[in-house]
Amino acid sequence: MLNLKTSTPPWWAERVEAHLEEILVDHAHCEKKAAGTAMNLIFAYVDKSAVVRPLKEIVEEELSHFVLVTDLIASRGMRFRKLPPSQYGPRLHELIRKQEPARAVDRMLVAALIEARSCERFALLRDRIADPDLSAFYGGLFESEARHHGTYVSLAAQFAPAEEVHARLDELAAQEAAIIDQGDPRPRVHG
Amino acid sequence: MLNLKTSTPPWWAERVEAHLEEILVDHAHCEKKAAGTAMNLIFAYVDKSAVVRPLKEIVEEELSHFVLVTDLIASRGMRFRKLPPSQYGPRLHELIRKQEPARAVDRMLVAALIEARSCERFALLRDRIADPDLSAFYGGLFESEARHHGTYVSLAAQFAPAEEVHARLDELAAQEAAIIDQGDPRPRVHG
Repeated sequence: MLNLKTSTPPWWAERVEAHLEEILVDHAHCEKKAAGTAMNLIFAYVDKSAVVRPLKEIVEEELSHFVLVTDLIASRGMRFRKLPPSQYGPRLHELIRKQEPARAVDRMLVAALIEARSCERFALLRDRIADPDLSAFYGGLFESEARHHGTYVSLAAQFAPAEEVHARLDELAAQEAAIIDQGDPRPRVHG
Repeated sequence: MLNLKTSTPPWWAERVEAHLEEILVDHAHCEKKAAGTAMNLIFAYVDKSAVVRPLKEIVEEELSHFVLVTDLIASRGMRFRKLPPSQYGPRLHELIRKQEPARAVDRMLVAALIEARSCERFALLRDRIADPDLSAFYGGLFESEARHHGTYVSLAAQFAPAEEVHARLDELAAQEAAIIDQGDPRPRVHG
């Protein structure tokens, strides 16, 4: 369902458990970027009315998640702060083709893959984190990330035939898997 | 109610009537910037829970207005496109003080003044434009711009005592009036 071509390695969950504060702050930044991405896609493709409404819903949900995570950070006596991001997002964005409509397809599919990876990892956090509040929190986010993944794949199909979209998703998913397998030395949601 | 220190000169409405397409495209860009501004304010001041909810509502409303204006542009056979903005926004932003919490106060008050000026001008458009659909459209936006003005002034008061906020609003409104009186040679919402 999530179109991912590699599973998160076991060391990721161990590292996250040892750096929960840093992961929460990074997670807040991820929700912020997700809201910004959906908003920029509205601005870029506003002439396609079929893409605007689902993207508006994504903006609203990502903003709500951003607020949820920052509330959680505050409730634990931690502070939301700047944090160097993982290289996952920038590496995926390098794969986006420059010419429209291929660019639109790739922007939607890269967003879809980021949502899929978040979804997979939130399920790991739900199952693994000892803290019951935090475990429930990640369980609650799991469903919407899966839904956003499906929405972004459908949105890509507004710009190219379904078979082209699925072939490109296959290619991008293979590259996403390579980025994940390579890993990132820092504790990050997409590290 | 709107705290404006100068009225829009009569030549503005005449120019607008002669360049309705350009004004509509500029208006779409204004709504886009308004949504982005409210979103950036959430990200900047997320630790103040009292500011997050009203700002989220503003993001959602401005995004809806952006879609409304671009639908209107499309329904008239025009195209949403890039357009050099007026100097109104950049000039106002130069007035924002650099140090917090003064910076927060000024960001909220500059946003409040932009909403107030939009509100004043949308009322002019409502009363003046011969096209009944377009006149009704601007009449419908008038109310929310007035409300956003009030919201931003209240939000500024989360960062400084009310008397300080009102003194600063008075100063900034005088500078906004000078920018408006100076004018901008191009047909723009804030030209």
